[in-house]
Amino acid sequence: MLGKIALEEAFALPRFHEKTKWWAGMFATDTDKHTAEINDVGPIRLDFAERHGVGLQILSYTAPGVQDIWDAKDAQALAVEINDYIAEKVKAHPDRFAAFATLSMHDPQEAAAELRRCVTQHGFLGALVNDTQRAGVDGDDMIFYDSEKWDVFWATCTELDVPLYLHPRNPTGTIYDKLWADRKWLIGPPLSFAHGVSLHVLGMVTNGVFDRNPKLQVILGHLGEHIPFDMWRINHWFEDRKKMLGLGETCKRTIREYFAENLWITTSGHFSTTTLHFCMAEVGADRILFSIDYPFETFGDACEWFDSAEMSNTDRLKIGRENAKKLFKLGAYKDSTA
Amino acid sequence: MLGKIALEEAFALPRFHEKTKWWAGMFATDTDKHTAEINDVGPIRLDFAERHGVGLQILSYTAPGVQDIWDAKDAQALAVEINDYIAEKVKAHPDRFAAFATLSMHDPQEAAAELRRCVTQHGFLGALVNDTQRAGVDGDDMIFYDSEKWDVFWATCTELDVPLYLHPRNPTGTIYDKLWADRKWLIGPPLSFAHGVSLHVLGMVTNGVFDRNPKLQVILGHLGEHIPFDMWRINHWFEDRKKMLGLGETCKRTIREYFAENLWITTSGHFSTTTLHFCMAEVGADRILFSIDYPFETFGDACEWFDSAEMSNTDRLKIGRENAKKLFKLGAYKDSTA
Amino acid sequence: MLGKIALEEAFALPRFHEKTKWWAGMFATDTDKHTAEINDVGPIRLDFAERHGVGLQILSYTAPGVQDIWDAKDAQALAVEINDYIAEKVKAHPDRFAAFATLSMHDPQEAAAELRRCVTQHGFLGALVNDTQRAGVDGDDMIFYDSEKWDVFWATCTELDVPLYLHPRNPTGTIYDKLWADRKWLIGPPLSFAHGVSLHVLGMVTNGVFDRNPKLQVILGHLGEHIPFDMWRINHWFEDRKKMLGLGETCKRTIREYFAENLWITTSGHFSTTTLHFCMAEVGADRILFSIDYPFETFGDACEWFDSAEMSNTDRLKIGRENAKKLFKLGAYKDSTA
Amino acid sequence: MLGKIALEEAFALPRFHEKTKWWAGMFATDTDKHTAEINDVGPIRLDFAERHGVGLQILSYTAPGVQDIWDAKDAQALAVEINDYIAEKVKAHPDRFAAFATLSMHDPQEAAAELRRCVTQHGFLGALVNDTQRAGVDGDDMIFYDSEKWDVFWATCTELDVPLYLHPRNPTGTIYDKLWADRKWLIGPPLSFAHGVSLHVLGMVTNGVFDRNPKLQVILGHLGEHIPFDMWRINHWFEDRKKMLGLGETCKRTIREYFAENLWITTSGHFSTTTLHFCMAEVGADRILFSIDYPFETFGDACEWFDSAEMSNTDRLKIGRENAKKLFKLGAYKDSTA
Repeated sequence: MLGKIALEEAFALPRFHEKTKWWAGMFATDTDKHTAEINDVGPIRLDFAERHGVGLQILSYTAPGVQDIWDAKDAQALAVEINDYIAEKVKAHPDRFAAFATLSMHDPQEAAAELRRCVTQHGFLGALVNDTQRAGVDGDDMIFYDSEKWDVFWATCTELDVPLYLHPRNPTGTIYDKLWADRKWLIGPPLSFAHGVSLHVLGMVTNGVFDRNPKLQVILGHLGEHIPFDMWRINHWFEDRKKMLGLGETCKRTIREYFAENLWITTSGHFSTTTLHFCMAEVGADRILFSIDYPFETFGDACEWFDSAEMSNTDRLKIGRENAKKLFKLGAYKDSTA
Repeated sequence: MLGKIALEEAFALPRFHEKTKWWAGMFATDTDKHTAEINDVGPIRLDFAERHGVGLQILSYTAPGVQDIWDAKDAQALAVEINDYIAEKVKAHPDRFAAFATLSMHDPQEAAAELRRCVTQHGFLGALVNDTQRAGVDGDDMIFYDSEKWDVFWATCTELDVPLYLHPRNPTGTIYDKLWADRKWLIGPPLSFAHGVSLHVLGMVTNGVFDRNPKLQVILGHLGEHIPFDMWRINHWFEDRKKMLGLGETCKRTIREYFAENLWITTSGHFSTTTLHFCMAEVGADRILFSIDYPFETFGDACEWFDSAEMSNTDRLKIGRENAKKLFKLGAYKDSTA
Repeated sequence: MLGKIALEEAFALPRFHEKTKWWAGMFATDTDKHTAEINDVGPIRLDFAERHGVGLQILSYTAPGVQDIWDAKDAQALAVEINDYIAEKVKAHPDRFAAFATLSMHDPQEAAAELRRCVTQHGFLGALVNDTQRAGVDGDDMIFYDSEKWDVFWATCTELDVPLYLHPRNPTGTIYDKLWADRKWLIGPPLSFAHGVSLHVLGMVTNGVFDRNPKLQVILGHLGEHIPFDMWRINHWFEDRKKMLGLGETCKRTIREYFAENLWITTSGHFSTTTLHFCMAEVGADRILFSIDYPFETFGDACEWFDSAEMSNTDRLKIGRENAKKLFKLGAYKDSTA
Repeated sequence: MLGKIALEEAFALPRFHEKTKWWAGMFATDTDKHTAEINDVGPIRLDFAERHGVGLQILSYTAPGVQDIWDAKDAQALAVEINDYIAEKVKAHPDRFAAFATLSMHDPQEAAAELRRCVTQHGFLGALVNDTQRAGVDGDDMIFYDSEKWDVFWATCTELDVPLYLHPRNPTGTIYDKLWADRKWLIGPPLSFAHGVSLHVLGMVTNGVFDRNPKLQVILGHLGEHIPFDMWRINHWFEDRKKMLGLGETCKRTIREYFAENLWITTSGHFSTTTLHFCMAEVGADRILFSIDYPFETFGDACEWFDSAEMSNTDRLKIGRENAKKLFKLGAYKDSTA
């Protein structure tokens, strides 16, 4: 399929070259190749896209990024730098690149203001945040965005009519020490990413974020970070907890309704047709978006899988492009490769 | 289907009646009914079983149970009391009831010895443990069983040729404070249970427990605590981490091999045909076992679902009874209801 | 779900009461009840609809109907009678009933003219035809509508912008004698219906009907009369036959494209969630329409199944109503039960 | 996967070289290559098998074969010739080749006798028959094997404890003229094969063949010739027809029971993971057998698909080899490639 849109595609700031390379040592077979790929916002990516039928890439800063910086001032400064950097890069290829804002999530007002700046001045299509914000004097605090305090931020998302991609980050601090240090191979894609994001987004659901902001749109990668698997079980227990306990005070709708009205899932890093079909049954093809997770995954793996995975032509077009066009209001988008 | 075997079925000690009732207040619509049901090891259960075609129930002490007791001596004393109590109860209905040992998991040798006593003297069919053991002076430590230190325990399981059911328990201590306190509706079946057990069992996988104990059999409830959903993704990253990093030193086989040779999943508390079919594709019907999770779920919900869920007759028999007969060597088992 | 739309719902002419009752003897447990139900276009149906959340029923004359009449003149006279009869009935409950035209298919021009009359004068939503038209002096000929001769009819369908429902009828004549007489239990829903319609509609595909009439919309009942099961296999062989043989001369597109652009399937008489999920993967939820097949199936069986079948809320709404609203341009449809 | 067993693998008699080549013109891109492949029972096949991990190929005479010969004497003579020919060929590679008997099906006693000869003297593993036997003076009659007259043949199958593979053949005579002549692209794999075999085997079911011969084992290719798709619908109508009509007189069990106890399906020519997963849910992995349909399909297409299709390791082994070992009592089979 030509003209696919991909939306969990990472870049890094070239000035962090050494750190990026060191970090790559934890998962990349070829750290130089990885570093070159993640630092590039031009020919490497465009060439892969051309060869694999990707029309538009929505770029975002790589995890853990700004969510790893527990000094609020430093975090904000870096976010602004990243946003201005990628805005310039995107301008050079407006038909092939778009961007999600990077946000410091120490303060809801500040995050909302930077999102507004990015959307209105840079034309960004939303924001991508790497799970909780590290905070506190030693970085051991974790700011979740599921309390009422964050409504001002979520209200800005809906006012600007842009979605937020809730991306994972690695466990840190006490959580790392107690749970993950002795089972380090589970950090990242094998397990910790799904644990972090599923807790965070279901916290938003049960704490009423989507009830107070009914138009809010949140995107989850990796086919939903495990949640679709337990759709029946979550629904069953939520409904019971509404009936006899107080869950219904904050969480008015069913989990299926939040998935139908507020949540989206992408195929990033999860190229399994069986799981995709399962998600089509539980979540519905209208809420699934193609994505790669480049450069942690390859264009080749993602696109060859998606282009040949068994599904109807209609759903391939929807998942590959049309759903994203609706979500991001890309009505005018005409991909040169399509 | 008649003669089903169910294996995540909880009982409590009647002497904790008040505590049981208080605990029930957190999830049960009718706390008196729940307390009566969980304290009964006789007519109530037998009547439900009769009406819903359950031949054999393998009983286990309710969570968090002994895993919640951070004093090692108290934990051991309670485990012994529970085991002797249920052994008596089971004897009264040997064709309808069987039991899993309850174990204090403070010390591998002690746990192994109590398991041996229960299997050889009481005829128990294995053990059920509620995730990590609370430990430390204030109960904030969590003992995982995935280090080499625990091999003596796992070796006893394989020597006795009995499986261990790795059941969840609620988050406690610092983990509770940092992750769950502000999103309490996610504690238990909606999310925290799967987080706890998936981390623990995949820790066992990556830390080499199944490579050092290749005949070890571990059972997971709730259709696998999310893991089947990410079979592709876990496999993909494990294989990469073996190639370029050190995972292959402890974890020799693929995740699919561990699921084919060491792991079992049950339907406890997850009565979704869609998810069951997905697990049949990813895990295989030979490794799926019917279970209820009574009295947290009802016999009616579980059995009416299972008996009418679309599947082949062969798989219904396997999942409903035959797989359990093989796993527990119940060749002579003839259910009066079948 | 309230406000469902159902579109394979049969009625009969009361003046054929005796024949209807005799026919019912071949499949109905209670022939009087069946006869009463199929003759009613009022309180019985409306009551069932009310109780089971069906907003709109699109009615059609029961099979084999006019397709069983091999005298062309008689066939046409009966078609007109049926259409005028049901037009009157529908007028009494315009918000609850709609109709498909009944057509004599002896002559393409005549069929086209009667369809036009029904759509423009009676407001019918399309036509339902019971497979091939019996013809010839002894009724042993079978008229298929997949030759170029029928393009005038198909062109009228697309000009009027209404779909045709290709419904089965029983085998007759030589075909009956040679294939079905000795295995009569397979006649009808168990097998012969799918054989008849799958041959006919794939004949339309391979003989180029949809290439010459690219906007033509055809509806198949019973989740597609077996065709989705072989989507891969049909596609595989069609593509080979295009490459090396002459299939590509008439049939330009892939079978998946015809299903995405020209074909629809309904759930009539096939209340299997497993098969529905399979069809969602192979055909896509956008092309699936709820239907019952009343009174051969009950409102209760169809609606209780559909309302509780596992799927996303979005797909339930689409399959239950929204797809039909698009196909039949029912934008203004507001169901009193919804 | 190494050591796969494949069982719908065709050969032809070299003396029919010209006819084989002419026939190949109807579906093969390269008729010379096809003719060479189907005539070879040696190096070509063994080389493909080696490269694609097929340990054992159970060979059968290509369709329509003897079922196309309406002279009973000629048919029997050809069957004997074919059987003696392939017996010799198989002897040269007993660890890599096995055979199904070719049978003239004009007379049940004669067919039974030839089957007995092939099994007891040649060590054949069963028989493969190409749907109905053409008969009558002009070949327009079709002999079905679903009447009581054929019980003597089926009894011989069960006495010898060997299965029969019910393979399709092309429509001929009046059936061809009336149904298929004007839609010739549907002949063979796209549609007519499934029509023929599904009618025949469901005729056996409803006419009581499996009730009178409860141990009889019949194999269907192409993932079951459409029948699994309608398992729910067939079951629904069969049960109704038993209750109120006479179906129960001959057909005592449910369609699901026949599939669990008497029927097997193979993957021949249907390399769709979606359909395979559906069949795993509806038929069960214990009754599915890997096959290719060589040389109409390639070893590469079949094996690359099967080896990488998502499923549990256990099911891959079962479908790929273990089920066949059970069905054909190949306990001692040790594949050199495995």
